[in-house]
Amino acid sequence: MKCKICGEKAIIHLRQHNLALCRKHFIEWFEKHTEKTIKKFDMFRRGEPIAIGISGGKDSTAVALALKRLGYDVRGIFIDLGIPVYSEYSRNLVTNFSSKFGIPIEIYNLKEHYGESLPELAARRRDKICSMCGTIKRYILNKWALEIGAAALVTGHNLDDEAATLLSNTLRWDASYLAKQNPVLPPTHPKFVKKVKPFAFFTEREIAVYAIVMGIEFSKMSCPFSKGAKSLRYKHVLNELEVQSPGTKLRFYREFLKFQKDYLKVQIEEPKLRKCKICGMPTTLEVCSFCRIFGLDRKED
Amino acid sequence: MKCKICGEKAIIHLRQHNLALCRKHFIEWFEKHTEKTIKKFDMFRRGEPIAIGISGGKDSTAVALALKRLGYDVRGIFIDLGIPVYSEYSRNLVTNFSSKFGIPIEIYNLKEHYGESLPELAARRRDKICSMCGTIKRYILNKWALEIGAAALVTGHNLDDEAATLLSNTLRWDASYLAKQNPVLPPTHPKFVKKVKPFAFFTEREIAVYAIVMGIEFSKMSCPFSKGAKSLRYKHVLNELEVQSPGTKLRFYREFLKFQKDYLKVQIEEPKLRKCKICGMPTTLEVCSFCRIFGLDRKED
Repeated sequence: MKCKICGEKAIIHLRQHNLALCRKHFIEWFEKHTEKTIKKFDMFRRGEPIAIGISGGKDSTAVALALKRLGYDVRGIFIDLGIPVYSEYSRNLVTNFSSKFGIPIEIYNLKEHYGESLPELAARRRDKICSMCGTIKRYILNKWALEIGAAALVTGHNLDDEAATLLSNTLRWDASYLAKQNPVLPPTHPKFVKKVKPFAFFTEREIAVYAIVMGIEFSKMSCPFSKGAKSLRYKHVLNELEVQSPGTKLRFYREFLKFQKDYLKVQIEEPKLRKCKICGMPTTLEVCSFCRIFGLDRKED
Repeated sequence: MKCKICGEKAIIHLRQHNLALCRKHFIEWFEKHTEKTIKKFDMFRRGEPIAIGISGGKDSTAVALALKRLGYDVRGIFIDLGIPVYSEYSRNLVTNFSSKFGIPIEIYNLKEHYGESLPELAARRRDKICSMCGTIKRYILNKWALEIGAAALVTGHNLDDEAATLLSNTLRWDASYLAKQNPVLPPTHPKFVKKVKPFAFFTEREIAVYAIVMGIEFSKMSCPFSKGAKSLRYKHVLNELEVQSPGTKLRFYREFLKFQKDYLKVQIEEPKLRKCKICGMPTTLEVCSFCRIFGLDRKED
C-alpha cells in the first residue's frame, strides 16, 4: 500500500478513515489530530504547565511526547508503587524515556512518602488492591498537578478505553455516568485539577504505531495485580464490530458526545465536598479515602 | 436441577432470573409474564380482536398460542409470498398449527390478490427483495388488521431482536430511532393500527422452549433470500456479553426504557401523511410504496 499523500510505502492503513500513510505523514496526521482535539475541547494552551502521569505504557509516553513536540510545557510524574519487578521495570523505561526525549519526569516513590508500598498496603488492608491503587494514583496525581500549577492533568485514555467505558455505561443506561463521560472533566472544586484526554479519538493501535515509529521503548508488561477486567470484554466485542464495520468505535464515541450535548444536559448534583481533617484535600467524608488507606487518621490520634 | 417451585425435574434454567423450572411451572411463569407485559404497557384487552401475522416461526406461533391461552381473541394471518419451497413449507406448518390449537388463521396469497409473487416482483424490479418484502408485509398486515377492527397488531419480536435493534441505534446514537423504540408503537394515523410486542422481554431461547413444550411444530427454515443480516452481529456480541454476565440483555433493554422516559421525551416530528391516490392508505408520497411496488399507479393510467 502507498501513502495517500506522497506515494511512498505506507506503514499504516487507517481503515476507518480509509487512509494509508507513510511514516512521515502518519506522524504529521497523528500530531495534527492531537492538536485538533486539544483546540476543539479547549483543553489547555501553550505556555501553561501540563501535568501527565507517566506509567511507562504506550499511551502515557506517547501523549507526553506528542504534546512536547507540539510545543506544550509537559511535566511528567512516575508513581513508583513498589510492585515487585513491575514497578522497577517501568521506572527504568520511564527514566530512559525522560532522558531520550528531554521530558522532565519526577519519580515519586510511594513508600518514601507514606511509609508503605502498594503490596504492603494490600497485605494490611481488606480493600481491593485495584481500587486502592486507583485512589492513590488519583490523589497523588491531582495533588502534584495542583502543586506545579498545572492547567490540566492529561491522561492517555484512548478511543478503545472511552468506547469500552461508554458501552459499559450504556448497557446499564446510567444517566449520571453518561452525562459525565467526556474528553474534558472540569474540576468540581478549586483543589481539583481539570482532567483531559487528548488521545480520546485515537485507537490503541494508532497510538502503538506512533509510539513505535517515534522510537519510544514502552512497557508491554501488564500489572501483575490486574485481572481480566470487565472492560476487556467490552473492548473485545467492540473490536469484533470494528472489524466488520470499520469506524464503529469512533462513530459510537463521537455521536455520543453530540447526543450528550443535546439530551444529557442534566444538572448532576455533585456530592457536597468538605476539607479532609488530615490533609485538607476535598472529600465527601471527614477523612478522605487516601488518608484512610494509609491510616493517617489513626496515626493522628 | 430441580424446579424452584415444586422440586420436580427442571426443564429450563433461567440464568438471568436465577430460576430453574419444571414444564408446568415454566409455562405458568411464561404466560404470567406475557400477561404482565400486556398489562404494564396497556397493549390490548380481553374481548378486543387482536391481529397477528403468523409466519410459521417460533415467535409468531408462540405469541398467538400464549395469547389464546390467556383468553384473548386472537386472529391470525399467513401471508403466502410465493417463495418456492419456503412459502409452501411454512403455509403447511401454519395450517396445522391453526387446526391443532383452534386459532383462526387466514391464508393470504399475494399473487392471487396482486398478480405477482415476491420472487416475480424481485425479478421485475430493481429494489432490494428484503426491503420490498418488508413494505409488502407491513402494508398487508396493517390493512387486514384495520379491516378486522383489531385493537392491536401483535408482533413476535423478542428480547434478542429488541436488544440488537437497540444496540444498533445506540452505536449510532440515533435520537429519533431511540425515542421511538418501544414495546408499543402507537399509530400515527387513524388508518394505522397500534403495534405491540408482548414478547419483548423474553429471550429467543425462552420462547423456543415454550414453543417446544407446548407442542408447536414451528419452522426452523430461514428465508432463502435473507442474508447474514447486520442484526445477527449485534445478537452475537450481546450473546457473548450475556454468557459472561447473565441478565445483560434484559437490563440493557429495561433500563433503556426508563432512560427513554426520562431523557428522550422528544417531540418527534412525524412526516406529514396524505392519502395514496391509488389505495387511499396514508403515505408521505402521492402514491404509497406498496402501490408503487406493484406498479398500480402505471396500471391506472
